[in-house]
Amino acid sequence: MSEFANLPSQELTKYRADLRARYEAYRGRGLKLDMTRGKPGSDQLDLTNELLSNLAPSDIKGRDGSDVRNYGGLDGLPEMKAIFGEMLSAPADQVVIGGNSSLQIMHDSVVRALLHGVVGGQGPWFSQRPKFLCLVPGYDRHFAICQHHGIEMINVELTPEGPDMDRIEALVAADASIKGLWCVPKYSNPTGTTYSSSTVERLALMKTAAADFRIFWDNAYVVHDLYDATDPLDDILAACAKAGNPNRVYVFGSTSKISFAGAGVAAMAASPQNVADIKQHLSFQTIGPDKVNQLRHCRLFKNMDGVRAHMKKHAAVIRPKFEAVISQFDKDLAGKGIADWTRPRGGYFISLNTLDGCAAEVIRMADAAGVKLTSAGATFPYGKDPRDRNIRVAPTLPPLAQVELAMEVVCCCVELVSAERLLASKA
Amino acid sequence: MSEFANLPSQELTKYRADLRARYEAYRGRGLKLDMTRGKPGSDQLDLTNELLSNLAPSDIKGRDGSDVRNYGGLDGLPEMKAIFGEMLSAPADQVVIGGNSSLQIMHDSVVRALLHGVVGGQGPWFSQRPKFLCLVPGYDRHFAICQHHGIEMINVELTPEGPDMDRIEALVAADASIKGLWCVPKYSNPTGTTYSSSTVERLALMKTAAADFRIFWDNAYVVHDLYDATDPLDDILAACAKAGNPNRVYVFGSTSKISFAGAGVAAMAASPQNVADIKQHLSFQTIGPDKVNQLRHCRLFKNMDGVRAHMKKHAAVIRPKFEAVISQFDKDLAGKGIADWTRPRGGYFISLNTLDGCAAEVIRMADAAGVKLTSAGATFPYGKDPRDRNIRVAPTLPPLAQVELAMEVVCCCVELVSAERLLASKA
Repeated sequence: MSEFANLPSQELTKYRADLRARYEAYRGRGLKLDMTRGKPGSDQLDLTNELLSNLAPSDIKGRDGSDVRNYGGLDGLPEMKAIFGEMLSAPADQVVIGGNSSLQIMHDSVVRALLHGVVGGQGPWFSQRPKFLCLVPGYDRHFAICQHHGIEMINVELTPEGPDMDRIEALVAADASIKGLWCVPKYSNPTGTTYSSSTVERLALMKTAAADFRIFWDNAYVVHDLYDATDPLDDILAACAKAGNPNRVYVFGSTSKISFAGAGVAAMAASPQNVADIKQHLSFQTIGPDKVNQLRHCRLFKNMDGVRAHMKKHAAVIRPKFEAVISQFDKDLAGKGIADWTRPRGGYFISLNTLDGCAAEVIRMADAAGVKLTSAGATFPYGKDPRDRNIRVAPTLPPLAQVELAMEVVCCCVELVSAERLLASKA
Repeated sequence: MSEFANLPSQELTKYRADLRARYEAYRGRGLKLDMTRGKPGSDQLDLTNELLSNLAPSDIKGRDGSDVRNYGGLDGLPEMKAIFGEMLSAPADQVVIGGNSSLQIMHDSVVRALLHGVVGGQGPWFSQRPKFLCLVPGYDRHFAICQHHGIEMINVELTPEGPDMDRIEALVAADASIKGLWCVPKYSNPTGTTYSSSTVERLALMKTAAADFRIFWDNAYVVHDLYDATDPLDDILAACAKAGNPNRVYVFGSTSKISFAGAGVAAMAASPQNVADIKQHLSFQTIGPDKVNQLRHCRLFKNMDGVRAHMKKHAAVIRPKFEAVISQFDKDLAGKGIADWTRPRGGYFISLNTLDGCAAEVIRMADAAGVKLTSAGATFPYGKDPRDRNIRVAPTLPPLAQVELAMEVVCCCVELVSAERLLASKA
């Protein structure tokens, strides 16, 4: 079929009738499919069931001799820091281990900055009306942290080649109240974009009006390749150090989508000065993170080679789901001029763009037919997608057959909503 | 021996020479004994080693059907909430489960109040120059949270009968910037005091100038009895509700000194309105606490009867250490008018008061003889003990023989420093 916009109205009207019939047929099936969140499936969780019982009473000491069951170890076990150091491209002593949630570490980092400021700054951000740059489409929970704490957000386009660096450079140079930038630099949520070398370098080098500007580098999918060849990503900590801006970046990571999503280990890495600052704050916040769980993870994975080998098992489970989504889009939507979509080589999401003004309606119709998608606008600050076109597809949780069926329904909705809009605009 | 103050100078001088000789003998032994922190001993940690491996791949679902390994469950598993509900005297749906550290939950609660205020308040405490009342002697980490965040602290005496309620009532009625009060209501750190019924009632009923006053009720030792008979403690949540001040109190607890100190489960309980507020904030902070560890704990303890039975095993391990400390004090210090000490029936600490102006010197001398005690002043805000007399003794970590030896040394130091002071004042 050629592009919808080029079809004679009569032909498109006829096709719409087919689509309506197909949609009603789906609706009659009483489906209940959930494609909303980037959760691993239970088959993925099964891959690390060893964590449930891999420590023995005779194996409760860290490499530093500490009894992992007792208090202490504010920044984590040395062997856990070594693994995250390699994962996040940082020396182990520039790693701080947290609890089970990297979101919590990011939130904490924002809160510390609000109440106390950061290294190189002029005190609490709270009273400085801070703003953050947000790459769009992006991760709703990053944006929610800002919104919750009254941090104004400014949208910057994430192009298929990476962030719009010209715009970022112009904004941060001009406005000292722009204090931060949220990034998911590898297999970005939801587009799957990995930042180019030039992007990383420009982020490290750019002149910021705020002396205490921070990049929140959420490297959530650093080892989450779907294929043998990884998307290469440059080392932002090294780039910032080389650029003379060593304190510019906070790097975050976790095993949430490596081991158990809700019971993994999270960590952050930063410059020595930043790490010293963070640890000083942490000493008031907690007596230390769960070292037993850290040791479980260290015993299971041993090192980053172990992590990488393990990620191939995840890829084998979820790659077919990603490919099912993309091949359904290719089959039903290609060449019709009504949508485009990404082809991630890793991560947890696929991003689908409809015609402007159609995403919310597609999501509503899919929901009415029993297919839940991430809510409209979720990938934008304040939940507002200015062009109402982005849909985040999260294919990992449901079984493959459900992913296939859900995508049939979604494609039908995209076609139907597009046809309706085009016909309405011609009328 | 009679009171030092009543001894003829000559006699006291002679006794001081004996003490000096004994002290030098201890010093010559190259001791290395650590009585600084309230950490459980490894024999206590061994009591819950089952937690290392008590979940099987076939046993990974909570009562609500959730896969504990995956994301979700912002406020915890229902079965974990049920146990903490009973522990903290709250309905299960008024419990919010956290990570491994109640200190972290308390810190978070203060931070939320600073940035957003609390139910019934007038916005962020940050800009209201908040003050907290601190019962002294008390828990250094409570005080450290306030100091770190610039919250002014006002000392209020914790008498052997409980907090000085007359003073608390007068202070909170007069000053609207007094926003909070730190309490360890049962087997208080470090005195072992348990608040009377009348104290709990007055705390619930008192008129506070601040509409958003909060009691931070750290019930850390709620089930930590050393003897079969417990010190009874009234239900503060019920008392506040009855008094018409349902939102006045945040109750905290954890299994840190029940299961693994560094890998337990922490929780808070509060009024329905407070809990709704807390959950709303939490939804921005984390995707949820570690449910795998919660399920491990639920499987091990089953219910509060299980917890209580388990605590008897802890008591059997640590009671002899408490009794060793107290009997050493009784033997070496009683009747001499140079010290008094508490006789806790639970908790983790014994509080020793020397003559005014002697504590820091006792701690210094004990350290020089190889016995580390909690630093001088630690039990007071800003690390300043105005009478320089309080010493916190933490008997749980070292083996019994070391506790006995350490206390011999400490008693010798107390006697020697007291003798020196009295002789100097007579000279």
